[in-house]
Amino acid sequence: MLSISEYREAIIEYLHEKIKVKEPANLYEPMVYILEQGGKRLRPVLVLMATEIFDCDYRKALDAALAIEVFHNFSLVHDDIMDDAPIRRGRETVHEKWDINTGILSGDAMLINAYQLFETYEGDTFKELSSLFTRTAIQVCEGQQYDIDFETRDDVTIEDYLLMIEYKTAVLVGASLQMGAIVAQTSATCKEAIYQYGNLLGIAFQLQDDYLDAFGDPETFGKQPGGDIIENKKTFLYLKTLELADAHEAQQLEHLYSINPVHNSGKIEAVKALFESSGAADLTRKEIQKYTSMAFDVLDKIDLPEEKKEPLRSFGEMLMERQV
Amino acid sequence: MLSISEYREAIIEYLHEKIKVKEPANLYEPMVYILEQGGKRLRPVLVLMATEIFDCDYRKALDAALAIEVFHNFSLVHDDIMDDAPIRRGRETVHEKWDINTGILSGDAMLINAYQLFETYEGDTFKELSSLFTRTAIQVCEGQQYDIDFETRDDVTIEDYLLMIEYKTAVLVGASLQMGAIVAQTSATCKEAIYQYGNLLGIAFQLQDDYLDAFGDPETFGKQPGGDIIENKKTFLYLKTLELADAHEAQQLEHLYSINPVHNSGKIEAVKALFESSGAADLTRKEIQKYTSMAFDVLDKIDLPEEKKEPLRSFGEMLMERQV
Repeated sequence: MLSISEYREAIIEYLHEKIKVKEPANLYEPMVYILEQGGKRLRPVLVLMATEIFDCDYRKALDAALAIEVFHNFSLVHDDIMDDAPIRRGRETVHEKWDINTGILSGDAMLINAYQLFETYEGDTFKELSSLFTRTAIQVCEGQQYDIDFETRDDVTIEDYLLMIEYKTAVLVGASLQMGAIVAQTSATCKEAIYQYGNLLGIAFQLQDDYLDAFGDPETFGKQPGGDIIENKKTFLYLKTLELADAHEAQQLEHLYSINPVHNSGKIEAVKALFESSGAADLTRKEIQKYTSMAFDVLDKIDLPEEKKEPLRSFGEMLMERQV
Repeated sequence: MLSISEYREAIIEYLHEKIKVKEPANLYEPMVYILEQGGKRLRPVLVLMATEIFDCDYRKALDAALAIEVFHNFSLVHDDIMDDAPIRRGRETVHEKWDINTGILSGDAMLINAYQLFETYEGDTFKELSSLFTRTAIQVCEGQQYDIDFETRDDVTIEDYLLMIEYKTAVLVGASLQMGAIVAQTSATCKEAIYQYGNLLGIAFQLQDDYLDAFGDPETFGKQPGGDIIENKKTFLYLKTLELADAHEAQQLEHLYSINPVHNSGKIEAVKALFESSGAADLTRKEIQKYTSMAFDVLDKIDLPEEKKEPLRSFGEMLMERQV
């Protein structure tokens, strides 16, 4: 097996080969622009890793891996329009560099292009990959819609929130791993288990991302914390605090989430104090641990020699070891 | 075989059954809204007709037909955002009734939903339908991009224009017919020929639509003529006039296409006079006739009994008999 960085290089090399500017250039330039920007390439790396774990040459999975990466970037282009985001990975977003219409149309072409990449595969494998991809892509759209809806809803439950992050983020991690298993033509049980591993790890990862957005060390987290609080995002921390807090604290939190002060540091500190004092911060750490453990339990039970599972376990540990 | 209106009813009934509002409602309501608005349902009717022509029960093709209709409506939702169009089929467009973000995301879900509808079909049929759909969908995006590019380009040739309308409109007509042929599992030769019939008819139809936009009778054409002239659209009539006109007339036309007067009737009449005096109007009528004849020649040569081809011929004649 290759290392993560070797898989990443294989993906990047394949991407350069397959995704090129052609006519009409205004459709394809934004596609190449966003795909060549980098990013961690976690999802396509998972496709390739899963393929090799089930004893199949990772090169057979390059098209499926690239399809996942193209889809992920399609969703970033359209989400950035919806969020009115000017910057992505330190560079202008597509709709900012070009315009909204270019973002819409290039995104559409990327979504279609992802489907086209599966055409490498024959008969049943093609259908299995394409159907999994479709189911996942619809869930990603539904997750994005729930996320938008939550901004204006005041009846969001913890369960609603967990479903939203599962759809918006986790299912694509599960699907990436399952695609490798499909290309390797392994058993239905293995396909299902590896999907669950990715899905549970994806939920744990997103919960941790929300936690670090409030409590992360700016040095190691890589961005200034408090973004979700500034945007009044109804995260797990927020919803759990409302659930646990007494009436007075709950009212305080709701008040803080109704204001948008020019200087945010006071608001951020006050909200974080409520996250802590209510016990929600502790419970969020426990929830992250719960999903991480569930993920590793699923992995333990997969019928594979331990050395095959080791790279997946390391990957999961690497993902979850970001320090609070 | 059923009549066109019976096929249309079958499509509408199937649509009601399959496309329903579910959670998250903000994602699916716009989908149901635009799909239930009506429209002529020409493309799905063609899928069903082609299926029966090749001796297969049209009901087997309902999912493929609905996929084409869902895709067509996806492209309308996104194009209406790009064109900033407030009204479609006499009702508010999706982004006008909701907002741009809803239009983008519901459109995305519709595109994915179209792919999902093909999952009814097994193995090779699934792959054949899905691949044809992908190729066609990418061409439709490319056609839309060319159309946008042409607005600001001053070097558009007649050839460029014909490729643009072929991609933006005609290929989906060809693909609709070919989908019926694929569901019916007919020969490769028949699949290719029926695609060509649809594609050529689609080009003829779009050329005629452009012609009628200038010269149509508002009574029978159904809309006030001159829209393309008001918007300075580089149609076949415009490009042909530039090609045929002397330097003075060409300059006049370019001037008229550079102004946006408050009252358009003078501009419209002056442009139409140039379309006529240059001989471009005559040549456009001939071009429409040329593509229509080519389409019917292709149909003549398809290896099918005459009575099987009759419905397709009638359909083509109905499409092209709109009076100038």
